[in-house]
Amino acid sequence: MLEKTTRMNYLYDFYQSLLTPKQRSYMSLYYLDDFSLGEIAEEYGVSRQAVYDNIKRTEQMLEEYEKKLGLFEKFQARKQIFQSMREILGDSVDPELLRLLDALEKLE
Amino acid sequence: MLEKTTRMNYLYDFYQSLLTPKQRSYMSLYYLDDFSLGEIAEEYGVSRQAVYDNIKRTEQMLEEYEKKLGLFEKFQARKQIFQSMREILGDSVDPELLRLLDALEKLE
Repeated sequence: MLEKTTRMNYLYDFYQSLLTPKQRSYMSLYYLDDFSLGEIAEEYGVSRQAVYDNIKRTEQMLEEYEKKLGLFEKFQARKQIFQSMREILGDSVDPELLRLLDALEKLE
Repeated sequence: MLEKTTRMNYLYDFYQSLLTPKQRSYMSLYYLDDFSLGEIAEEYGVSRQAVYDNIKRTEQMLEEYEKKLGLFEKFQARKQIFQSMREILGDSVDPELLRLLDALEKLE
């Protein structure tokens, strides 16, 4: 469950701009703020089932976007490369090169 | 027009997986293979206007995706950083570092 939560947090991070405001609210309460389905249902005056269905559908959409665009996968691949580069560079290197690497990572 | 074509080619490249098969066909014939609207219309047995409307709508969708996800903008930013890094690195450097930079660029 923890692994799924982490993955959903990342996918949400990458693709939230493609979701509706309601999808964003539910996902953010459930995954980021750790609300229960019941608490979200109460907050919005809808049934627990409605919240559950909406979140399940949103999770499927996020996985579908990831399958199509692969932003999370590329992010992970780049992160590994950044780490290897930093290991090689150490701190014995052109400071401009380190600044560029920082700039690259900030684009993530 | 040339600038727009280049931009559309890039946006198409980044977001084509989010389009329908028909949108992909029209865009690819128009922007990549340089077919005219009339030629595409003939190919698909529809009116020139229908092709035009479809392509205009698709262009708007691509711009909308770019506004939301910014993949082309980030690609351009990274490309500039890669270039600066290569200039600093020259060829007097750890070959492993160059290999990692190659791997990073291939992720684009």
